[in-house]
Amino acid sequence: MSNSFGKIFRITTFGESHGAGIGVVIDGCPAGIAWDEAFIQHQLDRRKPGQSAITTQRKESDIVEVWSGVFEGYTTGTPIMLLLRNENAKSSDYEHLRNLYRPSHADYTYHAKYGRRDHRGGGRSSARETAARVASGAVAQLLLRKYDIQFLTWVDSIGSAFYVPEYFTEFTSEDIENNEVRCPHPETAERMIAYIKEVRKQGDTVGGTIKSIIRNVPAGWGEPVFDKLHAQLGKAMLSINACKGFEYGSGFAGAKMRGLDHNDLFYRDNDGKIATYTNYSGGIQGGISNGQEIYFRCAFKPVATLQQKQETVDKAGNPITFIGKGRHDPCVLPRAVPIVEAMSALVLADFALRASAK
Amino acid sequence: MSNSFGKIFRITTFGESHGAGIGVVIDGCPAGIAWDEAFIQHQLDRRKPGQSAITTQRKESDIVEVWSGVFEGYTTGTPIMLLLRNENAKSSDYEHLRNLYRPSHADYTYHAKYGRRDHRGGGRSSARETAARVASGAVAQLLLRKYDIQFLTWVDSIGSAFYVPEYFTEFTSEDIENNEVRCPHPETAERMIAYIKEVRKQGDTVGGTIKSIIRNVPAGWGEPVFDKLHAQLGKAMLSINACKGFEYGSGFAGAKMRGLDHNDLFYRDNDGKIATYTNYSGGIQGGISNGQEIYFRCAFKPVATLQQKQETVDKAGNPITFIGKGRHDPCVLPRAVPIVEAMSALVLADFALRASAK
Amino acid sequence: MSNSFGKIFRITTFGESHGAGIGVVIDGCPAGIAWDEAFIQHQLDRRKPGQSAITTQRKESDIVEVWSGVFEGYTTGTPIMLLLRNENAKSSDYEHLRNLYRPSHADYTYHAKYGRRDHRGGGRSSARETAARVASGAVAQLLLRKYDIQFLTWVDSIGSAFYVPEYFTEFTSEDIENNEVRCPHPETAERMIAYIKEVRKQGDTVGGTIKSIIRNVPAGWGEPVFDKLHAQLGKAMLSINACKGFEYGSGFAGAKMRGLDHNDLFYRDNDGKIATYTNYSGGIQGGISNGQEIYFRCAFKPVATLQQKQETVDKAGNPITFIGKGRHDPCVLPRAVPIVEAMSALVLADFALRASAK
Amino acid sequence: MSNSFGKIFRITTFGESHGAGIGVVIDGCPAGIAWDEAFIQHQLDRRKPGQSAITTQRKESDIVEVWSGVFEGYTTGTPIMLLLRNENAKSSDYEHLRNLYRPSHADYTYHAKYGRRDHRGGGRSSARETAARVASGAVAQLLLRKYDIQFLTWVDSIGSAFYVPEYFTEFTSEDIENNEVRCPHPETAERMIAYIKEVRKQGDTVGGTIKSIIRNVPAGWGEPVFDKLHAQLGKAMLSINACKGFEYGSGFAGAKMRGLDHNDLFYRDNDGKIATYTNYSGGIQGGISNGQEIYFRCAFKPVATLQQKQETVDKAGNPITFIGKGRHDPCVLPRAVPIVEAMSALVLADFALRASAK
Repeated sequence: MSNSFGKIFRITTFGESHGAGIGVVIDGCPAGIAWDEAFIQHQLDRRKPGQSAITTQRKESDIVEVWSGVFEGYTTGTPIMLLLRNENAKSSDYEHLRNLYRPSHADYTYHAKYGRRDHRGGGRSSARETAARVASGAVAQLLLRKYDIQFLTWVDSIGSAFYVPEYFTEFTSEDIENNEVRCPHPETAERMIAYIKEVRKQGDTVGGTIKSIIRNVPAGWGEPVFDKLHAQLGKAMLSINACKGFEYGSGFAGAKMRGLDHNDLFYRDNDGKIATYTNYSGGIQGGISNGQEIYFRCAFKPVATLQQKQETVDKAGNPITFIGKGRHDPCVLPRAVPIVEAMSALVLADFALRASAK
Repeated sequence: MSNSFGKIFRITTFGESHGAGIGVVIDGCPAGIAWDEAFIQHQLDRRKPGQSAITTQRKESDIVEVWSGVFEGYTTGTPIMLLLRNENAKSSDYEHLRNLYRPSHADYTYHAKYGRRDHRGGGRSSARETAARVASGAVAQLLLRKYDIQFLTWVDSIGSAFYVPEYFTEFTSEDIENNEVRCPHPETAERMIAYIKEVRKQGDTVGGTIKSIIRNVPAGWGEPVFDKLHAQLGKAMLSINACKGFEYGSGFAGAKMRGLDHNDLFYRDNDGKIATYTNYSGGIQGGISNGQEIYFRCAFKPVATLQQKQETVDKAGNPITFIGKGRHDPCVLPRAVPIVEAMSALVLADFALRASAK
Repeated sequence: MSNSFGKIFRITTFGESHGAGIGVVIDGCPAGIAWDEAFIQHQLDRRKPGQSAITTQRKESDIVEVWSGVFEGYTTGTPIMLLLRNENAKSSDYEHLRNLYRPSHADYTYHAKYGRRDHRGGGRSSARETAARVASGAVAQLLLRKYDIQFLTWVDSIGSAFYVPEYFTEFTSEDIENNEVRCPHPETAERMIAYIKEVRKQGDTVGGTIKSIIRNVPAGWGEPVFDKLHAQLGKAMLSINACKGFEYGSGFAGAKMRGLDHNDLFYRDNDGKIATYTNYSGGIQGGISNGQEIYFRCAFKPVATLQQKQETVDKAGNPITFIGKGRHDPCVLPRAVPIVEAMSALVLADFALRASAK
Repeated sequence: MSNSFGKIFRITTFGESHGAGIGVVIDGCPAGIAWDEAFIQHQLDRRKPGQSAITTQRKESDIVEVWSGVFEGYTTGTPIMLLLRNENAKSSDYEHLRNLYRPSHADYTYHAKYGRRDHRGGGRSSARETAARVASGAVAQLLLRKYDIQFLTWVDSIGSAFYVPEYFTEFTSEDIENNEVRCPHPETAERMIAYIKEVRKQGDTVGGTIKSIIRNVPAGWGEPVFDKLHAQLGKAMLSINACKGFEYGSGFAGAKMRGLDHNDLFYRDNDGKIATYTNYSGGIQGGISNGQEIYFRCAFKPVATLQQKQETVDKAGNPITFIGKGRHDPCVLPRAVPIVEAMSALVLADFALRASAK
């Protein structure tokens, strides 16, 4: 009952980590959008496992297969089904997990909800599901091309000591992709990478934050009450595995401010457009975009699967010890960057279509 | 297109700040729930303006009128319409706002989206809409009574200097309601109140944070992918006027942690139930409740309406100076407490019904 | 869970026959539509009881009250709430129905579903709910004005002997409204009226059919799979109280035909537009409008409330005799005409907005 | 925007006639339903082309592939993706249709709506899409097994001369499946088959009607206002390719009746249950099931593709002559029987879950 997202541009994802494959149906994508499969594959490649020394070494080629909705180079307006086969599914790796509940995973809650679960690699609760989001998010970006909307998403911090400096604000997508941790500040990136390697060596994991800027969103997108633009963005990000928090504009820091400082005063810019001097609003006022940069930050907890012994209970509640097998990420942040971008694009594509419905 | 919330227990709100009234239709409320109008009114009274020296002195009696869906003391399963008349609607107070865009309000974005707006008191963008949420949230709480779900929601901080101490964790609803700022720590409450009065005297406003604990949610509520329990809670909170951030469980602090510290180890408690030693998960794993306490925190920016002169532009983009008239809150936090609680109840009532559909 | 209709132009109705009133919230109506309250009232007057000698003599003035969403003569894009107070609610008239199940009413099924019901005048199952549809359908018609969409809806037959002749195809809205049975063929209308009066004198009721033509719907409205234009029209009509069947285009007669006769051949008309020689398709092909006239027919059963003694059972299943009190229609057809028109307009307004979302 | 059906038990179909395949995602199917793939395949075999001498001779093996949502013999509560590969897709057969609009097909309307279309075999508008409905409808039937709901669906008439006699009411599913036209009355079946063969020999096609009885639906399913049980059934049937009309209970004949004759009087039956003497209501009152047999009838037009020369226009509106190539059904009725059954099951599975949500 919860595998769809979006109102007009609407995706439905399916598939388990160790089934035959995962995929997504996009319903409501307009006809006539030029298909750019290389771009979709590029986004998937940014998310895929095994891409660098600091991600899991599990191998999935994640080649997108287009099963419907595209004809002779253009979308047709009918549902687009994108499929990704599971290749590296060693189910036997997971047999020892069949009857126990891994700490801070969804094993116990799936059992509580469904009375059963596919225990292989987390089944449906695996972050593998996010590949379907990235594929469909890339299609959303194709739709958004006509608005020239730009996404800038990067790893802002790792753990408690490695932050992109506040003063560092001028950089490009290329700067972000320049290193395997997807942090645009080279020195910090280097330190983050070293730290993640250290953490992995200890069999441990670490969390961090991702920041995102979205440029060129026209004023007037979003809905005023429950589907506020930032509320949808927040839901989108919080629905990503391991995301624990979301803030936009001034965020939690804004809660400490006073009105006189926080208010973004309007002026008419050189092009005659109405703009604001400051942007504590994060480009959104009353749930609707105001034409300024949209920006937000989200928090990701450390990966729950550790490469060391942990205590837990089995289904009967008996204490049991286990060791995480398999190949897991010591830190999800680098691979979460394209997922955050995909979810942003899905939210905006939906609002673009909503804004045009009149 | 955005005035409904919930999938099975579904509300639709309507009304502008200075129209005839505001209200809500609740569709999907089961039949046979004992009607407790005094409780609904009580929740509205907690939100209503003019309730204390630190809120706006605007007067609205906010007496709930039940127009449908209740018969002889019980809900009938048909839509429940609750209406609140607008009493204190001095539209002329707002005539000077007709042609200008107040900073950090929704004036400009409504114009960008709709090409027009009801400028009186913010119209639909006014926080007055939240009274409809509180009324329907109280009905959601009636539904949740059979699960004995408890909500504990309080003002956690005001501005940058007034926090409830971390060590202070044992208190009741009564402790929260004991003072007009809805902070359960008496000394902090006193300092908060003094500060808010000071801020108001300066014609300024201030933000803060609200924290919430929800107890007795059964394990197994929530949905695994897009409608994760915390993602719906996050959307719900972020849809409240002035909310800028949301975090649950370990939240942004969790992003700084390492896996070994963050994992919540399972054990079997004295009642034979599976529980966790720690609760960084915030009672939710994989988007589904695990039976532990759910807790979250949200950030509210300072109120945008100041009692002092501000610069802005008119519709044509020309600079103009204006002074906020009317009677406004120097700080929304105390009145936001019942709104946060209402949105929590709406989310949980919907998930309670979803969980039962099988 | 079922009191809303439409995806983008979406209504939610509320209210019981003998509560304080009934009404509707319209969400998704675009901003900037010129408000024409006289037209809305006119449509309500066409539906209201007591309008002629062949309808119920119950009195409801059904004056529409606009509570939100309209400002200074235009829709604002925010929810429009329209309220109709119940005036003629003699609840005591219905006390004898509290514990019995009237034949072919919804008394028994409401009990089976909800375990209780508001027995006064049918409560929520009363056709009074359709007044809310007519009010919101009139707003849908305001939206459709820019397309110049024309609705022609009339009583096509009453009982088994009174049909509008097949050859009779040229008439206007005025011809329909010219008489109280809303049949454009004057002689047939006269005979229908006399028959309905006769039926009423016998304490009996009678069914009939309504036919409808919709002109000027642009080619390309509707959706190809589940939300086919005619499937939505069908659902809309079948959701009207007492409607038992729906057919469009060639309908049931088309099932008897052969392909060579049934196919509508295309040609280019004098304006260079693609048209069809015949129109067995009813203006819809593959669920999408083709620019030709849309037409359909729906069947209404005889009213279940008779002015004579009937056998039934009480809640315990014991046999009981009762007589229908109150003032009821001997035939719903004349008053159903504006309801059919309203539902058509609601379907088309929604598809108009869907068609524009790209 | 229209490729999903159902509110809680919700399917989304995808795929074109001549793409790689078609399929369906089922979201909201409860966990723990025993998987019966043989039954799903059996239902698909009843629909598949080439099954008998009176259907198209096109070959599709239509073997169902289960990609997700099923684990170790049971549904898991996660989305179920079912895929059917397209095997017999000779796209070149359709090259002559690329630039013309076939009469009474969706070619012109797809162009009007989308500005382009996949012309191969009708693309998305092909009845091939209904295979995905049959596959998911079979899953819905698995869910309904616990209620012992029985579907009896048959071909009631072909063309204007071949009807199942009214008096013929006692027969079983086996009687229906006994012959290739799916008509339970052996002599009529024989005559229908001979007629369809004759029609095909002439290169022509013919329509007909399907009737359906659903037994053992508990009283209390359905929703009172817009989602009336019969309104959803009507929409479901009208969404099937070629369906032109729907009636339930007394249907269009009921429109000719008088109230005294039409009312279904209640009594208490031998088991102490409340029942009705007659069943003009078709098992549904006020949109909610009353425990009696549900029955309805739907009309299907003759297939639009003829094996003979026809006039039409090309995209530019120029007259052009073409001959239907490919292998098409002379009459869709026999293969439509399992589709009607599937849509019924989808409607009821959704209402079963809705009824349990409280």
